[in-house]
Amino acid sequence: MKGSTVFFKNSPAVIAAAAVGGKMEGEGPMAACFDKINEDPYFSCETFEQGESKMLKEAVLHTLSKASLTPENIDVMFGGDLLDQCVGTTYGIRDLDIPFLGIYGACSTVTEGALLASLFVDGGYARRALAVTSSHFCAAERQYRFPLEYGGQRTPTSQYTATAAGGLVVSAERLPPYIRAATVGRIVDMGVKDAANMGAAMAPAAYASIKQFLEDTELAPDFFDAIVTGDLGKVGSRLLCELFDRDGVDIRSLHRDCGTMLYSFGEQDVHAGASGAGCAASMLCGYFVPKLRCGEFRNILFAATGALLSPTVSAQGESIPAISHALWLSFEPGTAPDIRFTRKEQV
Amino acid sequence: MKGSTVFFKNSPAVIAAAAVGGKMEGEGPMAACFDKINEDPYFSCETFEQGESKMLKEAVLHTLSKASLTPENIDVMFGGDLLDQCVGTTYGIRDLDIPFLGIYGACSTVTEGALLASLFVDGGYARRALAVTSSHFCAAERQYRFPLEYGGQRTPTSQYTATAAGGLVVSAERLPPYIRAATVGRIVDMGVKDAANMGAAMAPAAYASIKQFLEDTELAPDFFDAIVTGDLGKVGSRLLCELFDRDGVDIRSLHRDCGTMLYSFGEQDVHAGASGAGCAASMLCGYFVPKLRCGEFRNILFAATGALLSPTVSAQGESIPAISHALWLSFEPGTAPDIRFTRKEQV
Repeated sequence: MKGSTVFFKNSPAVIAAAAVGGKMEGEGPMAACFDKINEDPYFSCETFEQGESKMLKEAVLHTLSKASLTPENIDVMFGGDLLDQCVGTTYGIRDLDIPFLGIYGACSTVTEGALLASLFVDGGYARRALAVTSSHFCAAERQYRFPLEYGGQRTPTSQYTATAAGGLVVSAERLPPYIRAATVGRIVDMGVKDAANMGAAMAPAAYASIKQFLEDTELAPDFFDAIVTGDLGKVGSRLLCELFDRDGVDIRSLHRDCGTMLYSFGEQDVHAGASGAGCAASMLCGYFVPKLRCGEFRNILFAATGALLSPTVSAQGESIPAISHALWLSFEPGTAPDIRFTRKEQV
Repeated sequence: MKGSTVFFKNSPAVIAAAAVGGKMEGEGPMAACFDKINEDPYFSCETFEQGESKMLKEAVLHTLSKASLTPENIDVMFGGDLLDQCVGTTYGIRDLDIPFLGIYGACSTVTEGALLASLFVDGGYARRALAVTSSHFCAAERQYRFPLEYGGQRTPTSQYTATAAGGLVVSAERLPPYIRAATVGRIVDMGVKDAANMGAAMAPAAYASIKQFLEDTELAPDFFDAIVTGDLGKVGSRLLCELFDRDGVDIRSLHRDCGTMLYSFGEQDVHAGASGAGCAASMLCGYFVPKLRCGEFRNILFAATGALLSPTVSAQGESIPAISHALWLSFEPGTAPDIRFTRKEQV
């Protein structure tokens, strides 16, 4: 690590990625990015939670299938989701018999999982590692806000939790895109207490991690074809650009946000945009990885963002801590700079 | 990895470990293992959740203090707990400004964190990595079961969630104990649906990971001074020994369970024993690490165990998936066998 950025020595490759979505996602502008769309929010199960687990499992199986792999070929899997105790993941994968390490990063989970998968492969500890995450609108609404039957009104700053899952396999094989470096985020809490405005809570965390990445790598923003955030939505995206404005850096032409990409603002009633761990995951796995695979993008910086609140502590009046982990994905592999250690005070 | 066991190349060292506990823990036979006991379940805060966060932060600060380190000296921290969305951890550490990766392994969290911390250090990605976890009786009761005011009766198989936190720092320095290898667990679900009998749900996962570790390392059980499980309690411990009996292996003289160590069955009303992420963490950090440091133990196999249920899916009639990650801690460092890859089918 230099600063808080891990430089991978051997540029682990994302050899396969897949996304599974729900009805809303299939009606939006990104429908073609999904390997499978399920019209039924229950995914033919009895509860929304079981539906989320099934969707996540489908994402794993589609990912494996695209690389002609079976569960036995995966040495370690990383996964987590937004449901209490991450049951979307654990129940989804429980019969796959793959060594598993549970992670929790809220909507930043896909980049945390990809970072850890890359580390296992880059360090020679695993041949292939899988990362997966999901979110489900109906399950999230009743857990974080109100049961759907209540018909609660949503504020303009609120975002719509994506019903989506994404999975990817990292390996030492040579196939673009490659993961060149990753920044481990720090928790940032600027005091935002409005759980219906998570874009505002998360924007400072995205800003901190992107800035840290650029400092640690000594790369300029315009080195990248896109600087992507996970689910800041309209409100958080504007705040992110304003934070960079203060540094005299205009990232507007480079910035993309998965939360503003997934749905059509004109035709779909999603207020400030999409959110949920499945939002960033499905856009990374279904949109960005394919565009990097074919060379349409050469380099992107992908910073998924997570709001680390719970309904319990929000009800106790707490503010919302947020975190963002950033990945540098590249069409070309590269040798990491020979800089390993570490935080400035140790140099 | 061989099988699902990571062999560390350079034997990362646990250079510091600390435990913080509550009133019950201070009245039990392991009181002397805690660096600090708090009589007040609120830890001078307004809510139990805030109290848990404060306890976890105290565990981090005690751990750092014992190694004469400050937060700036830690390159990456791993943490998680039992509260929804792991808020015990994220709110506890939010102002420490340490690069953070959230993990969720229920009561197996301490071994998952130590495994990942070891990997970052062993692979040369971090100089020092910290792992921390916690549990809090009052916060867990109202989240998983009933608010304390309800005065719910507990069944004989139920366990008492420890109010405890443990933290440890892993580094490339040379100071025993060393982490020689670690087995990444697979999810095991044998169909147990009784959320008041988590020992029974978790015992098969502990059995699977310990057996996998012994196979992958080709070590015999009696190589170890102790084979330790996290919080199987009386019921799960008996089941674990019976599962090994079927293989013709009697581990009774070697087996210790943190869930049966933490409290006095005669004097404290804890039914089948202790549980909670803080149970295994405090016993690892406060009891086993010190005994390994001074050479009283030469080698232990430490397999913390987690029940991956949530109240929501339990209410939906689901069974309880469980997982266990195992660590080999040794008084002496050693070179890993030159076996890296991987699952049998790939050899």
